[in-house]
Amino acid sequence: MKLSLLNELRAQNPIVLNVSNFVTVQDVANGINAIGASPIMSEEIAKTEAMVKMSGAVALNLGAFTQDQVAHVRKMGQLANQYGKPVILDPVAVGAVAYRLGVAQSLLRDFQVSVIRGNAGEIAALAGIQWAAKGIDAGEGQGDLKAIARSAALKHNCVVILSGPTDFITDGTTVVTVKNGTPLFQLHVGSGDMLSSIVGAFAAVTDDAFEAAQTACLVFGTTGQLVAEAIGAELPGTFTVKLMDQLHLVTTQEIEAVADYE
Amino acid sequence: MKLSLLNELRAQNPIVLNVSNFVTVQDVANGINAIGASPIMSEEIAKTEAMVKMSGAVALNLGAFTQDQVAHVRKMGQLANQYGKPVILDPVAVGAVAYRLGVAQSLLRDFQVSVIRGNAGEIAALAGIQWAAKGIDAGEGQGDLKAIARSAALKHNCVVILSGPTDFITDGTTVVTVKNGTPLFQLHVGSGDMLSSIVGAFAAVTDDAFEAAQTACLVFGTTGQLVAEAIGAELPGTFTVKLMDQLHLVTTQEIEAVADYE
Amino acid sequence: MKLSLLNELRAQNPIVLNVSNFVTVQDVANGINAIGASPIMSEEIAKTEAMVKMSGAVALNLGAFTQDQVAHVRKMGQLANQYGKPVILDPVAVGAVAYRLGVAQSLLRDFQVSVIRGNAGEIAALAGIQWAAKGIDAGEGQGDLKAIARSAALKHNCVVILSGPTDFITDGTTVVTVKNGTPLFQLHVGSGDMLSSIVGAFAAVTDDAFEAAQTACLVFGTTGQLVAEAIGAELPGTFTVKLMDQLHLVTTQEIEAVADYE
Repeated sequence: MKLSLLNELRAQNPIVLNVSNFVTVQDVANGINAIGASPIMSEEIAKTEAMVKMSGAVALNLGAFTQDQVAHVRKMGQLANQYGKPVILDPVAVGAVAYRLGVAQSLLRDFQVSVIRGNAGEIAALAGIQWAAKGIDAGEGQGDLKAIARSAALKHNCVVILSGPTDFITDGTTVVTVKNGTPLFQLHVGSGDMLSSIVGAFAAVTDDAFEAAQTACLVFGTTGQLVAEAIGAELPGTFTVKLMDQLHLVTTQEIEAVADYE
Repeated sequence: MKLSLLNELRAQNPIVLNVSNFVTVQDVANGINAIGASPIMSEEIAKTEAMVKMSGAVALNLGAFTQDQVAHVRKMGQLANQYGKPVILDPVAVGAVAYRLGVAQSLLRDFQVSVIRGNAGEIAALAGIQWAAKGIDAGEGQGDLKAIARSAALKHNCVVILSGPTDFITDGTTVVTVKNGTPLFQLHVGSGDMLSSIVGAFAAVTDDAFEAAQTACLVFGTTGQLVAEAIGAELPGTFTVKLMDQLHLVTTQEIEAVADYE
Repeated sequence: MKLSLLNELRAQNPIVLNVSNFVTVQDVANGINAIGASPIMSEEIAKTEAMVKMSGAVALNLGAFTQDQVAHVRKMGQLANQYGKPVILDPVAVGAVAYRLGVAQSLLRDFQVSVIRGNAGEIAALAGIQWAAKGIDAGEGQGDLKAIARSAALKHNCVVILSGPTDFITDGTTVVTVKNGTPLFQLHVGSGDMLSSIVGAFAAVTDDAFEAAQTACLVFGTTGQLVAEAIGAELPGTFTVKLMDQLHLVTTQEIEAVADYE
């Protein structure tokens, strides 16, 4: 865990290039901005190369799922590999829809990702482990979440974030758990998408993707928790607004004061 | 009116599958979440069948209006009929643009809907009644709104919600009116879209589409009214945030205390 | 500067027809609504003509940049010329990506715009002046911003708004500067898009595009400034919400009290 990366990020203001989920694109762009990075949201395959070259990291969200968008994701992943930019993949709903899983697997064969960020159902599916999922939610199947995360990391040779009430972050060997968070994240469509792109912002300022992933989870989880505690009630609209405020203002000291990880 | 459906909905957490308006997609997803259902926002025609099968209701918003999207709406409506899922149709702007009316009519020939939810101009157009409309607004033409709603319901053999300062909900015979609401709904782009998808959430937990439509209108109208009264000023930004909060928290008791319908 | 246009706008409630940036479309629609105009957000090239005819102004945002969308923008610009509707162009990121600049230049050859609204990097690119830009931000190059704005206006025979901490508005001869604003505009993705469409709302109620552009900048800049001063901290989420509130409520008296332009 290297919390000083947050200050690095704010000092460097790296560009995070996103192929984004059409449902959550504005929130994700605002979240990247709030934390201190600079978002570009791409929806056009032409001239992708120029944008990849100027970016610090590439965040690919499979909520964007038309055939054109999948082609766009593939090209951007391959260009990111070519130019040595870290790639974050958010495999939206691959645990719920078999067709989505097939597309995600084919993308993972066509380029190498640095970090996969998904919920339990999504990560289990990418690990090839049976898991009951419903819609975009995490599903309710049983299983050793640490083992699932590790298995997915080894299979795809990357860092994996299995996020939920507790986040499990692993490089396939070590597993770091971050327990900070709030149930309000589940009530806000796009919390996971936002975390994935924020992982990109951290990955843009260090060569260590494992450290970037851990720190992003800790910063996002503690910030959400601090906001939820300040609100004191289950207010999903207010939470979203104040999460954006706090992502911009939160300090490493405030995070350290509540950090709960091992 | 069966207000207990709200508790049913929250207990069952049904999936509402949406083809959504690109303008309002995130708010609608958050609104479905806030009320206690689970949103899936679809933009891809491939593998629609798997998603229809896992859903409790299908909400089709004609704000999505490219040729690809219309094909998507058609397929999803037909699959919903095949699998017995209730279909909610929101005929955006059919009162303002003749071309849109033609598309909506052709869709209504190709599959059977359970509920149509529109403003006076849109419902009048679907009833074949002359009505002056401007843009996305309800228009200012004269006419007996009850008769217009009833006529559209009989013509399309479904429940119709003609929403506005007063909502008229009818199965073609009985007309229920819900007078709760607030002018702030007009200032927030997507209030109508959100209501349509929330009708879907209610339709997913009862076989009685008429009851689902009435209850959704009452819950949405009273919640907006309670929020507007609490704010006490015409603040469209704050209203949107607190509407999301209140959709999550509002109780049947709070609704009953202000409910104004007959 | 003709601040009474704000009251005109609210009295007339003109339709602003937008080809919008997919990232910010809902905020822009809500902003148009809040200020007192009526938004239509178009994404379909078919039947564009009917929509152009019913609109008071057309706002074209080049954040919409797939090949289909560029064709849509071109057709809408040409139709707006044919029907005498003012056209506002927002040349998103033309300062950062050469390919985007080429597309914008070709559009500017194919139809005549009334107002171009961009940041320093974007306006410099359209003026053919070298300028360093990064991503969607304004860039940090040096240069006489007044001269850049004037040069772009003369080159494209239109009013130009070069917006930033200070806005420069020019018809190629006179340059008006508006110094009102707040750094919080930079933290909210879509502030510029919103301003561009609000320029459209003002252009719809006067034949003088230069006056419309100035007034829109003053109204938007002072409103943001008043909100930021009321908040008193750098809260990007809260700012967005209260900006929408204040766009709806702000009076010409409140604007005059803080107006800083020459």
